Amino acid sequence: MTDDLIYHVDGDLVPASEATVSVDDRGFRYGDAAFETLRAYGGTVFEWERHVERLEATCDTLSLEHGLSPADLRERIDETLAANDLADAYVRLSITRGVQPGKLTPQPEVDPTVVIYVKPLPRGGLEGAPVWDEPATLETVETRKIPDAALPASAKTHNYLNGILARTELSSEVDEALLLDADGHAAEGTTSNLFFVRDDVLHTPSTDGPVLPGITREVVLELADEAEIPTREGTYDLEDILAADEAFLTNRTWGLRPVAGVDGRAIGGGPVTDRLSRLYDERVEERCYG
Amino acid sequence: MTDDLIYHVDGDLVPASEATVSVDDRGFRYGDAAFETLRAYGGTVFEWERHVERLEATCDTLSLEHGLSPADLRERIDETLAANDLADAYVRLSITRGVQPGKLTPQPEVDPTVVIYVKPLPRGGLEGAPVWDEPATLETVETRKIPDAALPASAKTHNYLNGILARTELSSEVDEALLLDADGHAAEGTTSNLFFVRDDVLHTPSTDGPVLPGITREVVLELADEAEIPTREGTYDLEDILAADEAFLTNRTWGLRPVAGVDGRAIGGGPVTDRLSRLYDERVEERCYG
Repeated sequence: MTDDLIYHVDGDLVPASEATVSVDDRGFRYGDAAFETLRAYGGTVFEWERHVERLEATCDTLSLEHGLSPADLRERIDETLAANDLADAYVRLSITRGVQPGKLTPQPEVDPTVVIYVKPLPRGGLEGAPVWDEPATLETVETRKIPDAALPASAKTHNYLNGILARTELSSEVDEALLLDADGHAAEGTTSNLFFVRDDVLHTPSTDGPVLPGITREVVLELADEAEIPTREGTYDLEDILAADEAFLTNRTWGLRPVAGVDGRAIGGGPVTDRLSRLYDERVEERCYG
Repeated sequence: MTDDLIYHVDGDLVPASEATVSVDDRGFRYGDAAFETLRAYGGTVFEWERHVERLEATCDTLSLEHGLSPADLRERIDETLAANDLADAYVRLSITRGVQPGKLTPQPEVDPTVVIYVKPLPRGGLEGAPVWDEPATLETVETRKIPDAALPASAKTHNYLNGILARTELSSEVDEALLLDADGHAAEGTTSNLFFVRDDVLHTPSTDGPVLPGITREVVLELADEAEIPTREGTYDLEDILAADEAFLTNRTWGLRPVAGVDGRAIGGGPVTDRLSRLYDERVEERCYG
């Protein structure tokens, strides 16, 4: 599947099948690494500055001073896209703390490992096609979201077992897990933020809770403001979501994806979801294909 | 540091400097891997059966069906020790879910990646020397232990950022962080279990809380029972620990390590710690050097 792809590892372009890291890399031993999932549309990385900002926030949380400039990182991404002759692509940028002496406590001097992964995706924007085939089906799971006091949800890291445990609970044919926080409030999906519409107001769980400040989430909130759709970031019970008129998920790859239902209860998209999806596609078209 | 060592990766003995895994390995992308830290004394892996049992418990939690027999795993460890001509060693055994298509949801069919790390340690047992130089100094930290509902503490995995964040909070010269759980009760160190003695009773936080069922911890509880030292596994506040007569940490590498103090409050070892340390060394001597 990745046979023909070229990745960028530690400064070099290498075939995906030969792209490796040391088993002593802290990214492997401990998941001690930051990452971003990005989307290239027509050769342009969408919302690059926001990704840089969030990556730095993650690295601050991890006390990971990698010493690489945004321009350097961007060049590695651009080189990788060019080497694969890809304009519309998924891009993953990972930065680990590298190899250090075998102690858990990190050393301040870091020789980071930088990995750029890519894979082709369809064109986006107004003339594009969604990556997903159908609206998403969701199930709530027993696994609870990790509290911010243990590992801040704002940090995108290689510690992804919380989401994996949630996914392993799902019935077959279900697309995404809906995680509740320790208090039972709705947090987010394992790789997506949740929005819902009720009485013409767009709601999404607040990042005061253990919720990733998704970049697609931020863009959707801005687009809603611009379109004068009332928005609210709050604390919600599952019942609030089940009683919604519309619901959708957001992430970098999916964009906006309507929610068919949660726990077997039908919800579906609707006029607000459709309008925001259109506005999102317009923004991508303008910024990346314009 | 690892220049001369030989690791075992996916069935092959390789120099540590050339030991790698694919960047697409789920162990690297997500920390989706189980591990055990073992101790070889005089060429014998101490408490091997318990490690096998706990490894299986971790893999059950992760729904990771690796399909490898304990005998196969043990053979890889023995080969690695032999290749390095090591009798007294630290051994780390990691099993990842391997490379799978780029989806978060694990596929049931697993081609696991198995890595054996080793490094030399001093002889243990009655004629041995401790790995640590001094009793441990501890500090409590703001980072809270991940609740079991989010990621069970009983699973030893490559998702180790919770402990790393705790370690990065420590003042210099402090050896270990003491993590409290979400309710503020004492849980454990980042790589160690905590014991304390008060009024001649040996206490340790119960594994009903987010506490790793450490194998050294289990052995110490058994040795205490055999020696008719009263034990109690309970729920403790920081104040209980600060008021202790003695305290010590346990893990595979350290064995029993007295606690000099917590948050600047002196505690120290004492007669119960000394007695249990002696009994532990006797057991290692008997089982591994006998």
